[in-house]
Amino acid sequence: MRTEKQSGLEGVVAASTRLSRVDGEAGQLILAGYAVEEIAPRARFEEMVHLLWYGRLPDAGELKKLTADLSSRRGLPVPTLALLREAAQNSLPAMDALRMAVGTLRLGRPESPEEDARTLIASFPTIVGAFWRLRNSLEPLQPRRDLTHVEYCLYQIFGGEVGKQRARGLATYLNTVCDHGLNASTFAARVIVSTHSDLISAVTGAIGALKGPLHGGAPGPALDMVFEIGTPERAEEVILSKLARGERLMGFGHRIYRARDPRADVLAAEAERFYATAGDRDLYALARGVERVALRVLAERKPGRRLDTNVEFYTALLLHGLGIPKELFTSTFAIARVAGWTAHCLEQLRDGRLIRPESEYIGPVGLRFESSAAGPN
Amino acid sequence: MRTEKQSGLEGVVAASTRLSRVDGEAGQLILAGYAVEEIAPRARFEEMVHLLWYGRLPDAGELKKLTADLSSRRGLPVPTLALLREAAQNSLPAMDALRMAVGTLRLGRPESPEEDARTLIASFPTIVGAFWRLRNSLEPLQPRRDLTHVEYCLYQIFGGEVGKQRARGLATYLNTVCDHGLNASTFAARVIVSTHSDLISAVTGAIGALKGPLHGGAPGPALDMVFEIGTPERAEEVILSKLARGERLMGFGHRIYRARDPRADVLAAEAERFYATAGDRDLYALARGVERVALRVLAERKPGRRLDTNVEFYTALLLHGLGIPKELFTSTFAIARVAGWTAHCLEQLRDGRLIRPESEYIGPVGLRFESSAAGPN
Repeated sequence: MRTEKQSGLEGVVAASTRLSRVDGEAGQLILAGYAVEEIAPRARFEEMVHLLWYGRLPDAGELKKLTADLSSRRGLPVPTLALLREAAQNSLPAMDALRMAVGTLRLGRPESPEEDARTLIASFPTIVGAFWRLRNSLEPLQPRRDLTHVEYCLYQIFGGEVGKQRARGLATYLNTVCDHGLNASTFAARVIVSTHSDLISAVTGAIGALKGPLHGGAPGPALDMVFEIGTPERAEEVILSKLARGERLMGFGHRIYRARDPRADVLAAEAERFYATAGDRDLYALARGVERVALRVLAERKPGRRLDTNVEFYTALLLHGLGIPKELFTSTFAIARVAGWTAHCLEQLRDGRLIRPESEYIGPVGLRFESSAAGPN
Repeated sequence: MRTEKQSGLEGVVAASTRLSRVDGEAGQLILAGYAVEEIAPRARFEEMVHLLWYGRLPDAGELKKLTADLSSRRGLPVPTLALLREAAQNSLPAMDALRMAVGTLRLGRPESPEEDARTLIASFPTIVGAFWRLRNSLEPLQPRRDLTHVEYCLYQIFGGEVGKQRARGLATYLNTVCDHGLNASTFAARVIVSTHSDLISAVTGAIGALKGPLHGGAPGPALDMVFEIGTPERAEEVILSKLARGERLMGFGHRIYRARDPRADVLAAEAERFYATAGDRDLYALARGVERVALRVLAERKPGRRLDTNVEFYTALLLHGLGIPKELFTSTFAIARVAGWTAHCLEQLRDGRLIRPESEYIGPVGLRFESSAAGPN
């Protein structure tokens, strides 16, 4: 029943945006004017958020103010925390817990779209951290206001102070993946808010889309093959047998980028920098070894195709190095992407109108009704 | 900053569907093969649900089985009920409460898309009823399995047995508005589930879209003018002064239908039938009187425009007659539309692929980064 028109809207322009430009042919990603490799490894996450929301970087005073405002919004409504406890007791996946909890943030004070955006960004690390601790039979940590957003994320997950290296590593990751055109979750958020609904509804919808396995960017199983291979000598054998079985090599290739995904370069450099001073050096060496073999084998076996290492591979490598558990990889992606979601919502409210495409009806017409029911109701 | 391309995707075909055909030029609505006026006033809601999900009406055995299965899924997880209590204590709008509560249905057993669809349909009346009773300082009612879906909806809202007339009135309303092409909420659901996410996530997103004031079909303020006018003699004066102030007359006109909206006819006939034997006859006479004056004045003042009475007007009239409080009008719309949402999700999972349109970047490029921060994090 699939038709040409059931095409996923590829090539259809659904919004004009000042937030990001994804040029898959050239292998370029622009984030509100800045090439990803220019800004991601150096900006604070709060600077990136300001850039996306307001179209320019903050000055020192604005940065201080935004940082303080976000840090004041880290607490969760009591029922939200109760719900996370239930989610943990029911062993729900972290993304389901995040979606449910974010959906209840309306139990806080009702606010403007700009304030909702701030509450959303600020709440995500508390939600993810509280859920993870509850899952591990620990009590949630009280919010702290004396940390930057990235430091606070790491504090929520690890429960203690963490070094500058880890904070920089996470900041670079969050900046790198904070926005990426009209991916399905961002588009879902824009569709929802195009009815002039609220940002909490829109972001709740976006989380629902992000958790789907076809949504790109989530680093889930990209390192599984590395762990499966275990030692460098086994790389070629395992990879060849996977290809022989027709399996896809996770971590290689991207739907959009024909040229190299620039995010992969940024995260590869960050991973290299990070593992040079911290983390599991053997794992890093193994991963890069597996990558070399995979690229060589793919070039031999699938010569016409561009199958570069993708952003998920380096994301998984970097996040693993930072010590973030694999179960939280997609939630960590959401901690980044909520910057883009909220910025798209604010842009949609400013410039957009109701998004309501057409459908093509391919069913029958003119049928006559006859009920099988004994009575009308 | 709005451009031609920020057009809301009008005229762009985003899905092929067997669920409904909206022909605004001809004033026709087909629901899975049946004209709305053919099926809506006669079918049970369970028949309509079966038709949308499976593409054909059930036989007597299938209808009995579906009715029984839905009736077995009416209970809510304990945390969902606790959340509704919080929502009521915080005086949240009913649609926010519905969105939050639906989002937590994953706390029940994890299920297949088909089962999630059933749980969603079955849970909506329990959620809406529990919230409304808690808002009015009453305890939620235990689910009952011995009622059809429509009888159960009325039981949840009113707390007692209700007559056949009211059940038929509500069934006709639910059938009439159960699906309507790719409206924004249905499209949001399809975008979310196009990532192969779950139906609870998709429907939660759809509720978030439906609650936006630009979403069509919600009957909110359509009767306000009737109440404001109060007695038939005042109709012309009030309407003329509204038009003089440039106000839109709620209840007249629709974005899509150029010819008459067939749903308006179905609901007008149902309202006439219902008020002939029950409900507030004076209010009905007043509303129809206001309608006559409004249509005459609009024809005189805006001669080129088609401004028929729309579906919201008759919806509000009918639901008011059934005794449903205005605060629950949009939630009652959701009780109907969840049939369409779930059917679109199942269709999308069967036939569709990832929905990922393009955006057009209209911002700057090539900026150089300079941080205002004292340190990197």
